[in-house]
Amino acid sequence: MSQSPGDLLDKLRAETPLVQCITNYVAMSVTANVLLAAGASPAMVADAEEAGEFARIAGALTVNIGTLSKPMLEGARAAIDGAHSVGRPWVLDPVACQATAFRARASADLSGLKPAIIRANASEILSLAGEASQGQGVDGRDGVDAAEEAARRLARDTGAVIAVTGREDYVTNGARALRIGGGSHWMTLNTAMGCALTGLCGAFAAVAEDPFDATVGALALFGVAGTRTHESASGPGGFGWRFIDTLHGVMPAALDYEAEISEAGTIAA
Amino acid sequence: MSQSPGDLLDKLRAETPLVQCITNYVAMSVTANVLLAAGASPAMVADAEEAGEFARIAGALTVNIGTLSKPMLEGARAAIDGAHSVGRPWVLDPVACQATAFRARASADLSGLKPAIIRANASEILSLAGEASQGQGVDGRDGVDAAEEAARRLARDTGAVIAVTGREDYVTNGARALRIGGGSHWMTLNTAMGCALTGLCGAFAAVAEDPFDATVGALALFGVAGTRTHESASGPGGFGWRFIDTLHGVMPAALDYEAEISEAGTIAA
Amino acid sequence: MSQSPGDLLDKLRAETPLVQCITNYVAMSVTANVLLAAGASPAMVADAEEAGEFARIAGALTVNIGTLSKPMLEGARAAIDGAHSVGRPWVLDPVACQATAFRARASADLSGLKPAIIRANASEILSLAGEASQGQGVDGRDGVDAAEEAARRLARDTGAVIAVTGREDYVTNGARALRIGGGSHWMTLNTAMGCALTGLCGAFAAVAEDPFDATVGALALFGVAGTRTHESASGPGGFGWRFIDTLHGVMPAALDYEAEISEAGTIAA
Repeated sequence: MSQSPGDLLDKLRAETPLVQCITNYVAMSVTANVLLAAGASPAMVADAEEAGEFARIAGALTVNIGTLSKPMLEGARAAIDGAHSVGRPWVLDPVACQATAFRARASADLSGLKPAIIRANASEILSLAGEASQGQGVDGRDGVDAAEEAARRLARDTGAVIAVTGREDYVTNGARALRIGGGSHWMTLNTAMGCALTGLCGAFAAVAEDPFDATVGALALFGVAGTRTHESASGPGGFGWRFIDTLHGVMPAALDYEAEISEAGTIAA
Repeated sequence: MSQSPGDLLDKLRAETPLVQCITNYVAMSVTANVLLAAGASPAMVADAEEAGEFARIAGALTVNIGTLSKPMLEGARAAIDGAHSVGRPWVLDPVACQATAFRARASADLSGLKPAIIRANASEILSLAGEASQGQGVDGRDGVDAAEEAARRLARDTGAVIAVTGREDYVTNGARALRIGGGSHWMTLNTAMGCALTGLCGAFAAVAEDPFDATVGALALFGVAGTRTHESASGPGGFGWRFIDTLHGVMPAALDYEAEISEAGTIAA
Repeated sequence: MSQSPGDLLDKLRAETPLVQCITNYVAMSVTANVLLAAGASPAMVADAEEAGEFARIAGALTVNIGTLSKPMLEGARAAIDGAHSVGRPWVLDPVACQATAFRARASADLSGLKPAIIRANASEILSLAGEASQGQGVDGRDGVDAAEEAARRLARDTGAVIAVTGREDYVTNGARALRIGGGSHWMTLNTAMGCALTGLCGAFAAVAEDPFDATVGALALFGVAGTRTHESASGPGGFGWRFIDTLHGVMPAALDYEAEISEAGTIAA
């Protein structure tokens, strides 16, 4: 039986899971603040010297390659090993994997290491699935719908839940698929919001039985908080801090009530 | 004769001391903004190639191991040597030293290098003093009072002023001890507030005759600004920027008037 | 024929140029948010493994040495090569180049690699031009006017447009010179505003025919947004997010109307 976004948010706030975030330098602060506002305990422990040891005490791990480097990759691999050794889930965010050979290679390698969830924009999902994308640099230029077939295939190939995020998100584990709405135009003008959402997927994964439910829960919370905040913001700067306040104030029952979740059609076996 | 928090704040704003902050990637921006708001001039110079040279022109140095790595440690050691060579104080923040062997070792080594002040939460102080802590990852789970005896011992062993921060802070140099109140629940949901406070201890240490007074002054200012801001914030995001505004607006005389400082009992010789 | 700030802002918003920012850890988030608010697409790609490849798809590159290290320098050199190979401009920000030998050397080396624009405070420009400065650490303590002669000489020596920013900015390409006013006292208490402005120079350079016009456009937009925001802010924290909102809302025609640009006298041949 699946766990609703509200069930998981309730559990998240009760358990305050430790979430190890190996993420980029732009995203660290906002990711930490989003996780704190949601109820989790973020820790940016990334060095290979300790990342594996730390992963053994964390509830979940997230790996984001936004500011990719060899030391960062070594730390990620150590942490992934650590997470696997204690049966904890990890989430991959293959930022701009279509942009350079280094990113394409790193993302392909990491996606083979059994992530529980991959969260990315449509251009990144297309690229990761080996298809042509129209992404420019770090910008996704492809619509979510253009990446749905690639997402289903990637889900089956990697065993991960795939979240393609954009104006309306698409989540699939290869067998099921849902769409999640909500959010705000201002989110696209706040740096690292997608990276923070990846962190939130980790927080939900730490308390969920099924990474599919975790992904839906995290995306639903982001969407509801974004929709609510949209009303009161008149620019990206004011949106930024109000989004944190709003996210912190979302109650589990309201999350289930306001979440915009719909079936995305049957997937042929 | 001791210098009051207000005396030191006045001096800080008059002298604009240069404070070299070797800190973690999550904390850099908020630390810089807290120091600027207080009246200091922060500089995040951390590479071993120049950290020692820079420390010779700085008024104080702070070292925070939040995102620990070998290059960061090399830079810290060079900077500490530089600070000592010109008789300037340095402040240690042993983030999550209980969480991994790498952190425990680095913190033990650094605490042996004559820091003027060590600022940490109770779990970190307990761990640094060689006692069992209940910290989970980067979260302190021990109450301040559980670490008071350890703090006094650590003060005597290292020669540093120890600040155990939490709901009510405890400051001791092994001979004297004070408690500092104030603050806000929202501070615990803003990432890197403790790290920024470490930076502020450095700023006060740069202008104080006694690191004990410096620590009390920095903690008092943080507490007063936190208490004042609490009223007007309805979430962690709004608290964050309002705290900076409030800190900037605290006048020296008001600081002495509003600071919640009390004796923490006599310490047996 | 020159392009006005409004012309360039219009072009910027229409083209959303990809701007590769190799910048310091303190500045990354605010730089990204300023560029997003202005209409550009920032990407913090800095590792030598991919920085050169990425520069070949970016519209412009910016290099800021705020948290200088050898790996950062290697990445910058690779990116500069990449930018030159496709004829794209790059912008240098020699943060605190007067503070250490490492910075002085790196800045001198980088300024010889044909930057299109160098943006810095007066102390940095004086130091880069080989003259004595009164800078303390990362703080410029020299007035803009003290660096005007050095700026003209540096422009002729490096071939770059030089922007000396401060209370009133001075821009020269060695043959022409303009002053740009506007801004707010609160900008000096927000960390990394100068670094973000360097990023904005990159964004304007990506769409401009002449880097002189690009520099004037970026400085004019920053000045107008700063002046407008000054009214509504009562501290540095509130200024920070409101500045982003204001910058986002500046319309091209209003920019040309409100920009405070004046001739800075004739330069002798």
